[in-house]
Amino acid sequence: MGDLNWAAIARQYRAGLLEDIVPFWLRHSLDRQCGGYLHHLDRDGSVWCTDKMMWMQGREVWMFARLYNMVERREEWLEAARLGADFLRRYGRDQDGDWFFLVDREGGPKRVAYNVFSDFFVVMGLSEYAAAAGESWALDLALETLRRIVRRRLNPKGRYSKLIPRADLPRDHAFPMIMLNVARQLGAIAPSDEIEALGRAALERIMRMHHDAARRAVFENVWDDGSRPDTPEGRLLNPGHAIESMAFVMDAAGADGDAGTVESAVDALLWMLARGWDRDFDGLFYFLDFGGRPPEALEWSMKLWWPHTEALNALLLALRLTGRPELAEWFQRIHDYTWRTFPDPEHGGWFGYFDRRGNRTHDLKGSKWKGFFHVPRGLLRCWRLADEIAGRPGDGSGSQLVD
Amino acid sequence: MGDLNWAAIARQYRAGLLEDIVPFWLRHSLDRQCGGYLHHLDRDGSVWCTDKMMWMQGREVWMFARLYNMVERREEWLEAARLGADFLRRYGRDQDGDWFFLVDREGGPKRVAYNVFSDFFVVMGLSEYAAAAGESWALDLALETLRRIVRRRLNPKGRYSKLIPRADLPRDHAFPMIMLNVARQLGAIAPSDEIEALGRAALERIMRMHHDAARRAVFENVWDDGSRPDTPEGRLLNPGHAIESMAFVMDAAGADGDAGTVESAVDALLWMLARGWDRDFDGLFYFLDFGGRPPEALEWSMKLWWPHTEALNALLLALRLTGRPELAEWFQRIHDYTWRTFPDPEHGGWFGYFDRRGNRTHDLKGSKWKGFFHVPRGLLRCWRLADEIAGRPGDGSGSQLVD
Repeated sequence: MGDLNWAAIARQYRAGLLEDIVPFWLRHSLDRQCGGYLHHLDRDGSVWCTDKMMWMQGREVWMFARLYNMVERREEWLEAARLGADFLRRYGRDQDGDWFFLVDREGGPKRVAYNVFSDFFVVMGLSEYAAAAGESWALDLALETLRRIVRRRLNPKGRYSKLIPRADLPRDHAFPMIMLNVARQLGAIAPSDEIEALGRAALERIMRMHHDAARRAVFENVWDDGSRPDTPEGRLLNPGHAIESMAFVMDAAGADGDAGTVESAVDALLWMLARGWDRDFDGLFYFLDFGGRPPEALEWSMKLWWPHTEALNALLLALRLTGRPELAEWFQRIHDYTWRTFPDPEHGGWFGYFDRRGNRTHDLKGSKWKGFFHVPRGLLRCWRLADEIAGRPGDGSGSQLVD
Repeated sequence: MGDLNWAAIARQYRAGLLEDIVPFWLRHSLDRQCGGYLHHLDRDGSVWCTDKMMWMQGREVWMFARLYNMVERREEWLEAARLGADFLRRYGRDQDGDWFFLVDREGGPKRVAYNVFSDFFVVMGLSEYAAAAGESWALDLALETLRRIVRRRLNPKGRYSKLIPRADLPRDHAFPMIMLNVARQLGAIAPSDEIEALGRAALERIMRMHHDAARRAVFENVWDDGSRPDTPEGRLLNPGHAIESMAFVMDAAGADGDAGTVESAVDALLWMLARGWDRDFDGLFYFLDFGGRPPEALEWSMKLWWPHTEALNALLLALRLTGRPELAEWFQRIHDYTWRTFPDPEHGGWFGYFDRRGNRTHDLKGSKWKGFFHVPRGLLRCWRLADEIAGRPGDGSGSQLVD
C-alpha cells in the first residue's frame, strides 16, 4: 500500500470526526427549544436561518444514531438522535404520509413533499435510530415510508413534475443510487426479501443504465429505453455523485463476493476521478459535460466539500477490496487537497464552497444543502477503512463499511 | 455631462448592435427548417442543443420586431420576427391556452407552462410583431395571454407551487416588474384603461413594497402584509434585477411627468449600484444578502452580462431625465468594465459568464437563459439615449425610451 502510514491516517480521520466535526454540530445544531436540528450554521456556528429542511433532519438523526451504533454508546449521541427522531415523528408528514421538504423552526410546514429525497433520508435516519434506541415505531415508520417511495417511483416528483408525460422521460441516477444505499442500510437492520430485491434492482439499474464501460463514464440521466440523447442533460456528468454511487456498488457487491462487479465499480471510480480532477487548479469539478463543454450550471467548476469526502472513502473501500496501487496515489492526492482546503482551523468545522481557483465563496458551515452528513460520514468511513488497511491488506472480501 | 463624448458613445453602441450582435444572431439563430429560433449557440455560433425555450422565442420575436419598428424597416428583420411569431402560434400553447416552457426543435412540448414568465415574453413578442407586421391575430393573442396572466396572478406557478398555501406567501419582484414593462409596451401599441391600470398597479406595488427608502435597497421578496422576515429569502438582493426595474419605473414615471417617482427610482438605482459593485474586482454581483452574508446561490459572486447591459441603459435614462452628475461617473465605470469583459472579438457576439475575478467560465453565446434580448435591447437603448444626451441635455421630460 505504498508509503502511506495508514495507522496515522486512521488517527487523523478519527480526530477530525470526534474532536472537530461532532463537537461543532453537538454544540451548535441541537434545537433544545423546539426539537430537531438547526442546520443553517454560520462560520462560528451561530444560526443564520431557523428553517428546517426535512432531509437534513433525517440525515442528522442518522449520523448521531450511527455514531452511537458504530463508534461508542455515548448517551449524548443517542439523545441527539432522539431530538431529531421525535421532531420527525411529530411534524414531518403531510396528511398523505409524505414527508415535507421544509418546515419552520416550530415544525410548521413551509414546502410540500415535492420529491422523494426527503423521504429517503428519513428512512435512513429512522431505521438507524430504531437500531440505536430499540424503538420499533421508528423502524415501522421507516418501512412504511420506503413502501410509499416505491409506489411513487415512476413519478417521484408527483404532481410537481414539469415534464410532459408523453415526452421523453429521463431517469436520474440519484434514485437507484440512494435506493441502493437505503436498501443496504435497512437490510442490515431489518432484513427481508423485499428489501434485498429493492437493493438488487437498484444496483443492476446503476450498472446497466448509468455505468457505461464503452464510454468510460457514469452518466446522470438515462432514458427508459437505455438511450442517452446528445443533449446537455444526456451528457451530464457529476463526478462526486458517480463516485459516491460506485462506493455503494462496491460495498454491496463486495459483501456478495461479486468480484466482477467490484472491479467494474473500481474502474468507474478511476474514470470519474480522471475526468473530474482539475489538472490546472486541483480539486474535483462539481459538474462536467461528457462532450467537454461547460455545463449549464453556473457553478460547474466550483469545488465543493462532499465530492472530496466521498472520493476519499470510496478510494479506501476500493483499496481495501482490490489493493490496486493507483488507488493509493489518488487517495494521497485528494487527501492532501481536502485537508488543506476544507477544515476551518479558527472556528472548527469544514467549509463547503470554493471557486475553481480555490477562493472561498461562502463561510457557512451549514445550509439547506450542507449539514451533519457528508463530512462526518466520510471521516468515519475513512477512519475505519484506514484502520482495516493498516491491520490487513485488501483481500477481496467485503464487509458493510459503507452505509 | 462631464467629459464623455456622447456622440461617440452612441456610435459605439450602434455599431455593437448593428455590426456585431444582430448579424451574429441572424446568421446562427434562425431555424429555417423547423421555424422559430435555435438559441443554444456556442462560441462560434454553432448550435449545441436544439431545444427551444418558449420565453426565448418570445424575446427574440420581440427584438427583431423592435428593430424593424424602431431602427429601420428592413425586410430581413420582419421575416426573422415572423419566423418566431408563426412558431409561437403553431406550437406554443397547451389546451388551456397557457404557454409551454420548453419545446423540442419541431415544436413538441417538453415542459409544461409552470409559471407565467413564458407568457409575459410571448405577450411582448406578439404585440411588437403585430405592430411591425400589421397582423391583428398576434395582438389578439397577446391580449388574451395577458388576461390569462392576470387571472393566474395570485398563484403564478399554479399547481406547481411548492409553497404550503397557508404558510407565508412571499411575492416576488419579477411579477410587477415584468408587468410594468409589458403594460408600457402594450399601452403604446393598443392603449386601453385596462392596460393602463395594470401598469399603474405594478409601478405602485414596486415602489411601495420592494423599494425601501429607509433601508436604501430594492428587495426581491416581500410578503403580502408588507413584512420582510430576516431570512435569506427576505434579505435577498438582485442588483441587476433592481436596476432593470428602476429603469422601467423611470420610463413610466418620466412619461407621466411624475418627477418625484423618477427621483426615487434614480435614488434606488444609485443605492443598488453602490451595493452591487465589487470594489475588489469590478463588475456587478449577481446576488447579495442585505445583511452582508454570502447568498445561498453558489453563483452569487459571478459577473453576468445582463446586469451590466441593464445598468448602462438605466444610467443613461436616469441621466437623460435628471442630469445628476454621479450618473455619468457610474456610466463610465460600467461602460469600461462591460466593453473590456463581454464582447468576443474573435467570433462576434458577447460572452455571458465570468467568475468574481473575471475568469470566463462559459464560452457559449446562447443558452436556456441567454438569448437575443438583453444585449441588443441594452445596446439599442444606450445608442438612442446617448444620441439624445448628445443632442439635448436632460430636461426632466420623459419619452418612451424603455420598453
